[in-house]
Formats: sequence, C-alpha cells, structure tokens
Amino acid sequence: MAVRLGRQTIGMTRPVTISSTATIVGTKESEGPLSPYFDVHMKDAEWGEKTWEKTESKMQKEAAKLAVQKAGKKADDIDCAFAGDLLNQCISSGFSARELGFPYYGLYGACSTMIEGLSLGAVAIDGGGNNTAVAVASSHFCTAERQYRNPLEYGGQRTPTAQWTVTGAAAAVLEADGGGPYITHVTTGKVVDFGVIDQNNMGGAMAPAAIDTLCAHFKDTGRSPESYDLILTGDLGKVGREIVINMMNANGFNMSDNYGDSGCMIYDMETQDVHAGGSGCGCIAVTVCGYVYEMMKSGKLNNVLVLGTGALLSPTSTMQGESVPGIAHAVAISNKTE
Amino acid sequence: MAVRLGRQTIGMTRPVTISSTATIVGTKESEGPLSPYFDVHMKDAEWGEKTWEKTESKMQKEAAKLAVQKAGKKADDIDCAFAGDLLNQCISSGFSARELGFPYYGLYGACSTMIEGLSLGAVAIDGGGNNTAVAVASSHFCTAERQYRNPLEYGGQRTPTAQWTVTGAAAAVLEADGGGPYITHVTTGKVVDFGVIDQNNMGGAMAPAAIDTLCAHFKDTGRSPESYDLILTGDLGKVGREIVINMMNANGFNMSDNYGDSGCMIYDMETQDVHAGGSGCGCIAVTVCGYVYEMMKSGKLNNVLVLGTGALLSPTSTMQGESVPGIAHAVAISNKTE
Repeated sequence: MAVRLGRQTIGMTRPVTISSTATIVGTKESEGPLSPYFDVHMKDAEWGEKTWEKTESKMQKEAAKLAVQKAGKKADDIDCAFAGDLLNQCISSGFSARELGFPYYGLYGACSTMIEGLSLGAVAIDGGGNNTAVAVASSHFCTAERQYRNPLEYGGQRTPTAQWTVTGAAAAVLEADGGGPYITHVTTGKVVDFGVIDQNNMGGAMAPAAIDTLCAHFKDTGRSPESYDLILTGDLGKVGREIVINMMNANGFNMSDNYGDSGCMIYDMETQDVHAGGSGCGCIAVTVCGYVYEMMKSGKLNNVLVLGTGALLSPTSTMQGESVPGIAHAVAISNKTE
Repeated sequence: MAVRLGRQTIGMTRPVTISSTATIVGTKESEGPLSPYFDVHMKDAEWGEKTWEKTESKMQKEAAKLAVQKAGKKADDIDCAFAGDLLNQCISSGFSARELGFPYYGLYGACSTMIEGLSLGAVAIDGGGNNTAVAVASSHFCTAERQYRNPLEYGGQRTPTAQWTVTGAAAAVLEADGGGPYITHVTTGKVVDFGVIDQNNMGGAMAPAAIDTLCAHFKDTGRSPESYDLILTGDLGKVGREIVINMMNANGFNMSDNYGDSGCMIYDMETQDVHAGGSGCGCIAVTVCGYVYEMMKSGKLNNVLVLGTGALLSPTSTMQGESVPGIAHAVAISNKTE
C-alpha cells in the first residue's frame, strides 16, 4: 500500500525497480555529449520506413522490445504498457502497441509523458495489481516539425528561444521485485499557465509548472534540493532552466549546485545550433533511460529527482489565441528502497 | 493490495466507490432516449464560447466541478484527475485542468478514455496512494467533424456505417470509502487490428478489440455474460454491435440477452438520422455516468460490465494508408464490494 504525502505526492511502500531500459536516438543526438549512453543510433531519419510517423512508431516498438529483452522477459511477462508521444491521437504509441501485444494504456502528457508513464507504472505495481509494467515515450524532429510548425522544406527561420525536438525513443521495464534502482516517490503535477502565448518559447511556458511541482515535492516529502545528487528537468532549455534556478531561489531553495535540464545536456549547446536546447517527449526519456540509469547502476548517482515537463498546447489552441499551459510530473529514483 | 487475475485483469481489494457523477450533453443528445438521465442540457453547440474547442473544454470543466460538488467535496479534496478527449494534444482536457487545480494525468484512449480513467483511478485508490480521484472525458460533434473529417459547412454525404460523434462530457468522483457502486475489476485492453481501412466504419474496426477484452475478462475472472445484469460497450454502433454478438457466440458466450451498446442507445436510431449510431469519448462517458449510474443507485441494475472502445487512428495515419487499430478497456461495477 502506497501512502499519501501532502497534496501531490505518493510514497511507495512496495519497492518498484527499474529493471532495464532501452534507448534509440537519431543522428543529431548521436553527435551530442550523451551519445555513449544510448543503445541504438539510427543512421538517418527514416530507419527504412516510408514515412517519419512510421519511423517514430518503429522506434517505440524496438525500444520496448529491447528493454523487455534486457530485463530477461518476454512480451507475455509484461502486465501493462503506459505509452505516449506528441503526435495527433498518439499514433506512434498506438501503432507500436499493436505490434507488441501488451495490455496498453495510452497517455498524453506532452513532453512529460515518460515520467507520467513511470509514475503510473510505479503506482500500479505498488498497488499489487501489476507485477511488471513498461513505460515508453518518443518524439521525432521531422514528425513534430511538420505537425506543430512548418513543412521542413519551407526552411523557416527559428527564434532564439526555439528548441530542437529530440529524435529519440526510450522504454523502461518496471518490476515489483528487483535490486533497484527504485522509484520511491511520485509527485503528480498540476496544470500551470502564466500566460505565455509565444509557442516558440516552450521553456518559458513550462518553467512555472516545473517550479510548482518542485515546491510541492519538497513540501510534501520534507526534502530539499540537497536530498538529491541530481535534479533533472525534461526540456526547459536555456531559457526555462534559468527561470527555475532564479524562481526556486526566490522560494528558498538553492538549485544552483545539482540541477540539470535534459534539453541543455543532450546537445552541445555551443556547436550544434539548437538555439535554446532540446525538447520533445524523447528528450527526458532517453536522458533518464540512458545517462541517468547508467549513472545510477554504476553508483555514480544514488538519489535522483526527475521531472518531465510538458506544454499542453496544440496548433489549434495557438491559432485560437490561447496561452500555453504547462505541466510537470516528478519521480524520485534511489539506489535504496526509500 | 489489488490482485492480478490472469493476463489482463486486476481485482480490487479496497472497495473503490463511484461516489458521484455529472453529465453535460448537447441538443441532439437532449432529444434522445437517455435525455432524462443527464444533468445539464446545453441549448446550442457553443454554450457562450467563441469556438467549439473552448466549449468542449468548458463542458469538461463544468462536469468535473459538478461531480465534485455532488460528492460533497472541494477541488482541494481531489487527489488526482485522469482526463482525456479526442482532440489533437487533448486540449479539451488540458485547458479544463488548468482551471480546476487538481493534480492531473492526461490520457489518450480515443473513445475508450472514460473507462481508462475509471480504471487508472480505481487502481490508484486501491493501491493506497490516492483517497480520491476524478475521471473525466468529452467529445463534441463540431470539434470532431472539423478535425477528423470535413468542415461542417462542406456538408459532406455520410456513409451508412458512419457514426455521429456525441456532444457530451462526463465526470465521476472515485473514493476509497463509500457505499458503492463499487469498481471491482479492471480489464486492460490490448491493441487489436483486423485490417479495417475504412475510417467511416469505426464500429467494424473496434469490434475485434471489444471481443478480445470481453474474452479476456471472462477467462481471467471465471465469469460469463450471465454474471452481469448489463454488459455495455462504448460506441460500436449497429455494425459493431452485431459483430460482437455473432463473434462472442462463436467463442461460446451468449450475449444476446443483456448486451447493449451506448452508441445504439443514446439516439433514437429510427428518427435521429445518426446512421450506424453514436460515437466519441462522450458516448460511453455520459451513458455510464448518466443512465448506468442512476440505474445502479436505484437498484435496477446491480452488476454491470462497461467497456470503452477506442479507434487509435489519426487523419495522418489514414492518409498514410494505415488500417484502424482498436482498443477496449473494461471495468466491472457492482452494488456489492465483490
């Protein structure tokens, strides 16, 4: 039985282990600083498929299969999959799940989806109804550009606050019994909207949600930034990251020592021409399942708080003059069971 | 602690009560046979909003607020919301959640979303981490038509297998302690695709998923159709409903006595010109939260199995020549705790 902690947090009592992960990335991510932590490096944007949407679906499917295989399991051993992506009607996930044969719940948390999946998977296992779960998420630069912005052929100029959608998919297998790393806490985000209407400033739009969830997590658990070796947000980029440090400081929390943002880590910000940094469901997904997981397995990191950050807009809501609501979900991962 | 039953089912051990529901419907649904069971009847498609998307978001928000109020609770009493809709990036849900202030998980299960929400809410409460949850879902004829098919002004001819998207939103408050009706079992669906490529034949595309989940539920629980007063699917319509009866019969289950489909119940199939019936997230949502809930509270129904059925396509996947994958999630609801 999990326990309720404060307004937004659940503390796990049955240790939920992340027993394996798998990551697949595109060419630009393979040239970035986290490249050695990824399992599969695609040689081009298509990976043998006729459309980028089919590629992204294949990436999810292969990441899930690889993670299940690494965990020493078969498809029939997986009690439930939690998956999502950025595409309309989450087709990358639905078409991938068609091939995998797991019982399946589709999620939409924008770029927070991987952490939403880890959260719900952990809750379902801690509750006893599932022994295993797999969380999956993906994004693809080419599918996201043509859906949210312009056809690639148009070659539109990008603003300084714009971010680069990560081409990446990741999967994590969760289990009731295992040796860790363990998901110990889940903090569910609220939708927060400070009125940013610039759809090219996602970092600014999502930062208030990250701050809200961080403050809730510390309040609910009695912890502080010093409780963690690393606090990692999803894809706030340069702009959002700076807002988080400043505003958390104003809230009495010093985040300047151990705080990173996946969007600032996955590319070389000096040389890879990504403006404010990386973004997309794949950004936090491959960073957590690649870099963070390996650092925890090797004991270089032992207590990590990861936040998926999502912007809950659509091209339609933008055209109708709406601002950009943000959300951030957090899970605490530890090499100890508490 | 919930218990795992077979491949796809979870049995609840902490009784999860549906302590209140609320429903809001459009004009066509107000003229249908289930009209007396709905709480709010909109007088037009706009409900005072400038766009149909804003209307649908308002419908979700007001349904959630009304359900919380009927349960004698305040927004701060709700530990978590599970919500979704059909629109790109689930904007009806995201923008509604922005106003409500609940910790929020976004779902995408196409028209199965309400049952996905009830499932995950029940699992989260049974697991002990949540004391309350709210499940919310919506659809709107005008937002769905312009997104999935044609602008309404175009006046396109509809095929005989086409269905009519329900304008409706519903919310249900779930609680750890209460007097029922109780969610006793959750059966998670797999994605099933029999290769239907006609996006105007959703009933045919989704029926195999409903059959798969029904068979799994009966196998996992040792139950049969006779265990229930009513078995209700979401929006298979005339075409899909007939496939379910025939194919379940071929699988050894007699469904001819107590099986209904919300899509065939919400409109008068003779006079309301809806072709194969109703569809959309709102279809099963308002039928379960309106009709089924009232029949259970009054003791006219005592054991019900409800299945949300979803078609996981997008206009993009259809244009790329993909078939239509279906999914069906089931929850068993009883006036007794088991």
